[in-house]
Amino acid sequence: MSTYELLSRERTLINPTADRVKDVAALARPRQRAKRGLFLVEGPQALREALAAHAQSPILDALYVTEAALERDPALAGAVGAAAGSPAPVEGRRVFARLVSEEVLAAMSDALTPQGVLAVAHAASVLRADPWGREQAPRLVAAMVRVQDPGNAGTLIRAADAAGADAVFASSGSVDVLGPKAVRSTAGSCSTCPSASTCTSRRPCGGRRSGLQVLAADGHGDVDLDDLSDAAARADGPPPAEGVDLRRPTLWLFGNEARGLTGAEKSLADARVAVPVYGRAESLNVGTAATVCLYASARAQRTAR
Amino acid sequence: MSTYELLSRERTLINPTADRVKDVAALARPRQRAKRGLFLVEGPQALREALAAHAQSPILDALYVTEAALERDPALAGAVGAAAGSPAPVEGRRVFARLVSEEVLAAMSDALTPQGVLAVAHAASVLRADPWGREQAPRLVAAMVRVQDPGNAGTLIRAADAAGADAVFASSGSVDVLGPKAVRSTAGSCSTCPSASTCTSRRPCGGRRSGLQVLAADGHGDVDLDDLSDAAARADGPPPAEGVDLRRPTLWLFGNEARGLTGAEKSLADARVAVPVYGRAESLNVGTAATVCLYASARAQRTAR
Repeated sequence: MSTYELLSRERTLINPTADRVKDVAALARPRQRAKRGLFLVEGPQALREALAAHAQSPILDALYVTEAALERDPALAGAVGAAAGSPAPVEGRRVFARLVSEEVLAAMSDALTPQGVLAVAHAASVLRADPWGREQAPRLVAAMVRVQDPGNAGTLIRAADAAGADAVFASSGSVDVLGPKAVRSTAGSCSTCPSASTCTSRRPCGGRRSGLQVLAADGHGDVDLDDLSDAAARADGPPPAEGVDLRRPTLWLFGNEARGLTGAEKSLADARVAVPVYGRAESLNVGTAATVCLYASARAQRTAR
Repeated sequence: MSTYELLSRERTLINPTADRVKDVAALARPRQRAKRGLFLVEGPQALREALAAHAQSPILDALYVTEAALERDPALAGAVGAAAGSPAPVEGRRVFARLVSEEVLAAMSDALTPQGVLAVAHAASVLRADPWGREQAPRLVAAMVRVQDPGNAGTLIRAADAAGADAVFASSGSVDVLGPKAVRSTAGSCSTCPSASTCTSRRPCGGRRSGLQVLAADGHGDVDLDDLSDAAARADGPPPAEGVDLRRPTLWLFGNEARGLTGAEKSLADARVAVPVYGRAESLNVGTAATVCLYASARAQRTAR
């Protein structure tokens, strides 16, 4: 079926109580996502990046757009047209696409103010249990340990993507990184930065086995991130902590918002690193701390190359 | 009246439809905040930092806590006891404090899951129209220009506080930084990092007049933040942009989430600075970009001292 037919006005979905609409809306629930292996991508930026990722390698299952959204944004319309009917990740299936009424989109969406576009994507296409099996060994990996807030998880994933991280882990007990709020917060990075959700907090993702140094972000840590950055920039003199070097391939551990990392988790790390607080703030939000840590690593690694 | 009397069990507020409860709940609305000059502080961390700030200089008007929250957290109970009945910012007034039922707290709160504590604070005590009139000239200032999302505004304020910024501005057209969601996102930094909300986007807060260099955070900027950091660390060689130096006192401009800064606003800046994106992310969330920029400034300034 051609894009024209898939997105023809005659086929516009207008019944907000149709089963298909309910099936999409149900993906706001963790159980439904787990059972069906699908998740929602909402909002123009997240969808734009998901469409770009899909053009590289299939991740989308279905696309729902309002006519108004396509008219507002010709670039989006082009990308939607290209993805409609293209191969989906499931063998033999093609990306289902339909124009929908505003009412149908609102019924499908988890967002308070849906913005005219919504996609259904394959979890298995963005979650990989093992990022180690690739040609190039990972140099920068972020692991969330029981991070609870979807906004924090999304911020962390986006920061990890921007910093060029090879993978993001979410431990058991972390928020579902494919929940609608987390996906909105990643603004699409969930589809570009490979994520894995299978590690447990007792084994930090096989990091050490793979030759990565493991650094625990810890407000009370005994190593100052700036000292590590200074040491990496100087490239001589003694390191601030035995054997720790920001230029080395690194796995960062980021803990729960309220309780941080456990003693056992910290003891798994090669060092406990504190982001310096220059002002009066008691501590940093985990998303903010992760941003500073991951960018410090990226910068040190870039300089070292 | 003693703390014991203020927080006595006999005086517990139990009627969720009482006028006082409605008056507190009404502070979730911008107009009510503007009219009464008060705002809500919710959640244990935000409240803890607000109590610490109040101990230095009065900012609180009233405190409402559940008995369970005090029992869970003895340190919080101590701080609440110390603040109850202490001088409020308004001459002659003392901080009103009451135990409240869970039902009353839920009725007062804007949060989906209120956590047993809520304070009412004075906007005028945390907002200062002019941060220049202090003994020490400001070295680091953040200005939000039409930032719309309260979570982003809160993240930015907290990052600014952690980076040791002297002030945070919000332009006209920005979200109210004292709205409940923004205050929760600052986790209390709104009461420790002086904020001012009076600048308009056409005059970036008198920054240049005061000898601050003005840097516009701009994903398409022609100056790379890492190059500025490198130049500041090397302390010799030519700067990556004429006259721009991260070690100098700096005012950062951060623009609207979707549209960034206008051409006119960028032209007011001494340089347009891009945070490097090492991965595939299209751009950075404004809170994340601000974190990286402000920490880069803080680090360069610290090294320079």
